[in-house]
Amino acid sequence: MTIITLLTDFGLRDGYPGVMKGVIWKIAPDVQIADISHAIQPQNIFQGALALSRTAPFFPPGTIHVAVVDPGVGTLRRPVGLHLSGHYFIGPDNGLFTLVLEHAESSDEVVQVFHLDQTSYWLPDVSRVFHGRDIFAPVAAHLAQGIPLEKMGTLIHDPVRLEIPHPVPIQGGGWRGQVIEIDTFGNLSTNIDKVLLTPLGELQMHIGGQQINGLVGTFGDRPPGSLIALYGTTRDLVISIVNGDAAHALNISVGDVVEVYSASRATSQ
Amino acid sequence: MTIITLLTDFGLRDGYPGVMKGVIWKIAPDVQIADISHAIQPQNIFQGALALSRTAPFFPPGTIHVAVVDPGVGTLRRPVGLHLSGHYFIGPDNGLFTLVLEHAESSDEVVQVFHLDQTSYWLPDVSRVFHGRDIFAPVAAHLAQGIPLEKMGTLIHDPVRLEIPHPVPIQGGGWRGQVIEIDTFGNLSTNIDKVLLTPLGELQMHIGGQQINGLVGTFGDRPPGSLIALYGTTRDLVISIVNGDAAHALNISVGDVVEVYSASRATSQ
Amino acid sequence: MTIITLLTDFGLRDGYPGVMKGVIWKIAPDVQIADISHAIQPQNIFQGALALSRTAPFFPPGTIHVAVVDPGVGTLRRPVGLHLSGHYFIGPDNGLFTLVLEHAESSDEVVQVFHLDQTSYWLPDVSRVFHGRDIFAPVAAHLAQGIPLEKMGTLIHDPVRLEIPHPVPIQGGGWRGQVIEIDTFGNLSTNIDKVLLTPLGELQMHIGGQQINGLVGTFGDRPPGSLIALYGTTRDLVISIVNGDAAHALNISVGDVVEVYSASRATSQ
Repeated sequence: MTIITLLTDFGLRDGYPGVMKGVIWKIAPDVQIADISHAIQPQNIFQGALALSRTAPFFPPGTIHVAVVDPGVGTLRRPVGLHLSGHYFIGPDNGLFTLVLEHAESSDEVVQVFHLDQTSYWLPDVSRVFHGRDIFAPVAAHLAQGIPLEKMGTLIHDPVRLEIPHPVPIQGGGWRGQVIEIDTFGNLSTNIDKVLLTPLGELQMHIGGQQINGLVGTFGDRPPGSLIALYGTTRDLVISIVNGDAAHALNISVGDVVEVYSASRATSQ
Repeated sequence: MTIITLLTDFGLRDGYPGVMKGVIWKIAPDVQIADISHAIQPQNIFQGALALSRTAPFFPPGTIHVAVVDPGVGTLRRPVGLHLSGHYFIGPDNGLFTLVLEHAESSDEVVQVFHLDQTSYWLPDVSRVFHGRDIFAPVAAHLAQGIPLEKMGTLIHDPVRLEIPHPVPIQGGGWRGQVIEIDTFGNLSTNIDKVLLTPLGELQMHIGGQQINGLVGTFGDRPPGSLIALYGTTRDLVISIVNGDAAHALNISVGDVVEVYSASRATSQ
Repeated sequence: MTIITLLTDFGLRDGYPGVMKGVIWKIAPDVQIADISHAIQPQNIFQGALALSRTAPFFPPGTIHVAVVDPGVGTLRRPVGLHLSGHYFIGPDNGLFTLVLEHAESSDEVVQVFHLDQTSYWLPDVSRVFHGRDIFAPVAAHLAQGIPLEKMGTLIHDPVRLEIPHPVPIQGGGWRGQVIEIDTFGNLSTNIDKVLLTPLGELQMHIGGQQINGLVGTFGDRPPGSLIALYGTTRDLVISIVNGDAAHALNISVGDVVEVYSASRATSQ
């Protein structure tokens, strides 16, 4: 049974995600539909891109991911469909797929991007304000029913990409990165991956005027209230307060700097 | 596969919608269940009626919509089941179905309303505080299993209806309507439909002491921060601030007045 | 079709529940998945235990309930699987299953608890921060596919239990209990069950300096704004304000005392 996932910034009050399910099941009655999130911050394309890249890989091959964070809905921005890593992605061409594209390309995978320009696979009446319902949901449903992307669109090679903040090396050793996401618990997810830090040995983290010595394996390794650093659900460096809210306590926002040094280098200064 | 949708004011914390799914699947193991919204403002029957009327038509024929915004639960208010526009609606007889009824009647459709009075299709133990679980979910599930509404209830002709605010013509041309819904983004949805405004040509909107000249096609047609008017997801006149929150910026509440004039008439004054 | 339910404190923004669905469907493509709640207060094990005990019984026999409120994730606390009342429960061994255990034991049911120690049924890469995805979701999916719990774990007899607050008799008649949950509407659910109160006849409730005389059958029995007492969705004594928020109005928190007397005794004092 094909799975379609939904990720939007629509919120759960107004019924927009429900409407998309109705449209999908009208065309493809047997698909399973999973909500990833409908609480992406309104118009925050990067947050959507990050959530998508962290969740999609856990779905079975063949899953169709519909993502709609779409401040340009109804303008000339293109609707697109992607095929990569054995998954499909449907949504606006505004950078929302930058991270899944980068991941696939960094593994030298074949990536296909289609400009969805075949209106016969859309709802008959396309509004200029709700392409999630009128274009993306029906295209995903037709794809689940076996219509290939190449029939619903035209191959393109210039999908829009976000400028992704990458960590930079610090002179003398270490990495300067950023907080890129704050989760429901107030944990600070950074753009520094475990693979960068493993060579440094014992670590020392600096963030928001605080210093953290060493990593822990999990939250419960320290008493409640402790400021800790650990690897998160996708091996990202995370700053956290045990059973607390690190973002609030340290007054940290997305974009704030985190620096990581090798503990031996830090000591030698 | 039959679809059952759920629309309530139960919120998502306490597990009430989940319980309804358990009850449904116990009786009808193969139905698909879609959440429309569980964040209707508590006891706000009109908000529920509006969300229902704007989402139900996008589901396939035969869909069963369970709607529970029910301040009178456990009192003498009747449980009802409706059959109209090829869809079924199950819930309390308190006006929640006024808009779907009006839409069907305005197209001269056959409408059937049943007072659900056959207790053998309910859970054996009916509480007086949770008919969503004890009456509406099991009736919807039995309906999905093929039991017709006429077996579970008695035909009636006097379903309760809400007083719906309709726009009124302004002397000299134009319409005076109301904000009837504010969505998650702070967009102001009005009760003025596109069909009323098209004959007026170029438009001028007045709301909250502000004047808006002309409609745009979509949000991205103006820079962020612009106050705009456009047609919404269901062709309703919507007042919005691009990437902003119009309700907050203009200090508008549901029920506030919006006036629309023909631009030519406005100029000639 | 097997049903798997999900109850967590993950929130709906970050996509963690969606990831669990992906993992489940990768192993067990045909299961139905129902969200019970993802809005349990972070790390509030008791709130999770209560929500689970109030919702699970309404699902069909054979349902698999995955519950993850897990401040000790990645520490030595055990992952467990329970079989009781014809249902399965999968999650951390931290007391989350205390109430469903107590209910089953009070009916002299056979209860089986397994320490899930067979890592071959987990995801290959187990993080120390997201066992919902890496252990509990795959175990639930394998269980749905027919692998028995005894193959995935070892029988144990000492599952961790929470200290559950029970009501105590008041000298001279009546019960002193506690508010154990405040729902979305601000209704105060207590740990005093209908079976304790029925023998007392007419009742008088004391809470937050207020006195309530007698029970009502449902909210609509009194005008909006009335302070009432009634039996809730699971026959618990509930204090409520009609169409209002009793928790806010009476400034009540979880753990606050409620006392119930027989009205005749109260009068005779």
